Amino acid sequence: MTTMTAWKARVYVTLKHGVLDPQGRAVENALKVLGFDEVGDVRVGKYVELGLAAPDRETALARVEEMCRRLLANPVIEQSRFDLTEAQGDS
Amino acid sequence: MTTMTAWKARVYVTLKHGVLDPQGRAVENALKVLGFDEVGDVRVGKYVELGLAAPDRETALARVEEMCRRLLANPVIEQSRFDLTEAQGDS
Repeated sequence: MTTMTAWKARVYVTLKHGVLDPQGRAVENALKVLGFDEVGDVRVGKYVELGLAAPDRETALARVEEMCRRLLANPVIEQSRFDLTEAQGDS
Repeated sequence: MTTMTAWKARVYVTLKHGVLDPQGRAVENALKVLGFDEVGDVRVGKYVELGLAAPDRETALARVEEMCRRLLANPVIEQSRFDLTEAQGDS
């Protein structure tokens, strides 16, 4: 029987450079209206936390990688990166 | 004249524990439909990257903290954290 370990992945999805980011522009403008004139280059992305069970780190990395490719990021306009840590609890 | 340094802040905004996360549930269900049965506890948040100019690290930290409080996160249902690094270029 394979012992499963609980992992926690934090996935960051951002628009690729050169892709227009209207949400980022809106946030930047709002910050400036509030007096944060020193701000620039605001980009808004998604942040996904998820737990998963996998026998080892390599398997967990491969699975999260696949999740990014198949669902979490749109490879045409987005790029994703993630980090993976062993979860506190166990499964 | 004060010398300004360019900083880059990465802000992570997540829903507080106990706040229902329908987007996270939707992503979790979609992952399971795709065969990722080992996944659980999916939470979706926002990720904001921004550049700012500040004379020193303490000022930059205080300004980003204030941006989170006043615009980026809704303190009723969300929590935010951020990290701050010196930007490659200079301003």
